[in-house]
Amino acid sequence: MSPAPAPFGTVAIIGLGLIGGSIGLAVRDHIPGTHTTGFDADPAVRERARERRLADVVCETAEEAVRDADLVIFCVPVGAIAAVARDLAPFIPQGALISDVGSSKQTIAMALGEIFPANPVVPAHPVAGTEQSGPDAGFATLFQQRWCIITPPEGADAGSVARLFSFWEALGAMVETMDPQHHDLVLAVTSHIPHLIAYTIVGTASDLEDVTRSEVIKYSAGGFRDFTRIAASDPTMWRDVFLNNRDAVLVMLRRFTGDLSIMEKAIREGDGDALFELFTRTRAIRRSIVALGQDDARPDFGRTDHKG
Amino acid sequence: MSPAPAPFGTVAIIGLGLIGGSIGLAVRDHIPGTHTTGFDADPAVRERARERRLADVVCETAEEAVRDADLVIFCVPVGAIAAVARDLAPFIPQGALISDVGSSKQTIAMALGEIFPANPVVPAHPVAGTEQSGPDAGFATLFQQRWCIITPPEGADAGSVARLFSFWEALGAMVETMDPQHHDLVLAVTSHIPHLIAYTIVGTASDLEDVTRSEVIKYSAGGFRDFTRIAASDPTMWRDVFLNNRDAVLVMLRRFTGDLSIMEKAIREGDGDALFELFTRTRAIRRSIVALGQDDARPDFGRTDHKG
Repeated sequence: MSPAPAPFGTVAIIGLGLIGGSIGLAVRDHIPGTHTTGFDADPAVRERARERRLADVVCETAEEAVRDADLVIFCVPVGAIAAVARDLAPFIPQGALISDVGSSKQTIAMALGEIFPANPVVPAHPVAGTEQSGPDAGFATLFQQRWCIITPPEGADAGSVARLFSFWEALGAMVETMDPQHHDLVLAVTSHIPHLIAYTIVGTASDLEDVTRSEVIKYSAGGFRDFTRIAASDPTMWRDVFLNNRDAVLVMLRRFTGDLSIMEKAIREGDGDALFELFTRTRAIRRSIVALGQDDARPDFGRTDHKG
Repeated sequence: MSPAPAPFGTVAIIGLGLIGGSIGLAVRDHIPGTHTTGFDADPAVRERARERRLADVVCETAEEAVRDADLVIFCVPVGAIAAVARDLAPFIPQGALISDVGSSKQTIAMALGEIFPANPVVPAHPVAGTEQSGPDAGFATLFQQRWCIITPPEGADAGSVARLFSFWEALGAMVETMDPQHHDLVLAVTSHIPHLIAYTIVGTASDLEDVTRSEVIKYSAGGFRDFTRIAASDPTMWRDVFLNNRDAVLVMLRRFTGDLSIMEKAIREGDGDALFELFTRTRAIRRSIVALGQDDARPDFGRTDHKG
């Protein structure tokens, strides 16, 4: 699993939004020997992708983009991957490694395995992103110091796994392999449930009759605005994540709502000790995240200008 | 309600943490004619406050700090305000305006009204802060372009309300007056429930057996880390907020959990349209918050280094 300079000669990027575009830009910066081809179903996105040079060649058809690929990465919403892959399968070279960047992995791994019985299939998930989407959202450093989780199906070819590992390392990511099912459980709690909660509370706040929407917006600095950022993420992508990772999301959601009703009871009964105990315990997790470089230590995300 | 340069001659700040310290620093920068005195029950905080010059004079006793005050601001946790105020009441000059900075207002307004029947009492709540606390956390620009909500009790003296209004405007805040009960409902949704949710999900994540704490920390960039920032806020302050704003918090919590179970049902039944509809609607709120200057438009809070 040692990193190699150019694990693939030609990389085809299908879907040129935030992640696909960032891969193209990162390959250009970090793996000079690699040629990238790109395609997006939306003509306006292809045009913008050409202007921003998100891939060396932005093709007019997906068939053209994959024709000479050593690695094909599907960077479309999770719910669209299977259909896009099925259409393209006849045009993809035998031996080309098939991968994706989806936020849920079990259903994708199964679908890609069925569609490509003869190709090596190694799904992956770079745990990186912003609330923005589209061909203007990507940037070359998106994956730096972020984790990329590779989820090889049972019996995956070790050489293919190692090549994809090297590819993501070359883009600046820290790479780990994980069982697809376990990935889905981990991401349900670190990503999917936080998004669901954020979307829901923003929805709740905008539907109130006794508090106006203008009040919600004005006084959002008290905590709410952080949730609105997350709740501004791409709707199609997130709809697909919840539909595809249903079981793990429902398991984790049940645990969260169980814990929330314990907190509700503590508030109702005026049990300050129970509240204080939780509020103290959660600080340790934050410290570890900052210590491990997975977040910025600047207070309030550095929004405010600090002068001693 | 026109802003005046120095609405108070001497301002006593009781409690020199994030908010108290920031008030002291902001007064020095913005209201040169005003003298500040400060006190904190913790000797180590007083020492640090002197080093950082959080007030012109940091007194060894609270009695000394309030002795000549025209305005006394209680900047201690909501649950401690009544006890501290009761102890100090005999030492506070008649005519001194009594205020505070607590995140819940109804119980505070009632308590302060009872303790100070002869003084003007005008509670306030600057909607500003970071996840940090203590005498090192404050900074002079904390209130700039942030809202400060003044919640005068029924029959409050208009002149006193106007003076406090001017004081907060001079510190850079945008000021609004509101009924204490309505304040508590608004803040329950824009601040208290978001904090409760964040504390709870961070607690849930740290208690899982099937996902390790190290996994939660490593893959937190998927959304979870934003919740850990909020869940790193001061435990004493937040315990008191929930105990004091119980009714409004429980009302809003019930609406949130109701909405969350609708989302759970949509996921369980694979109702993509319901998910998509919510996820689209919530983007509008984000846009309004950014447009009104209540948050930063930089993607991912400007954490990542963007290169086109």
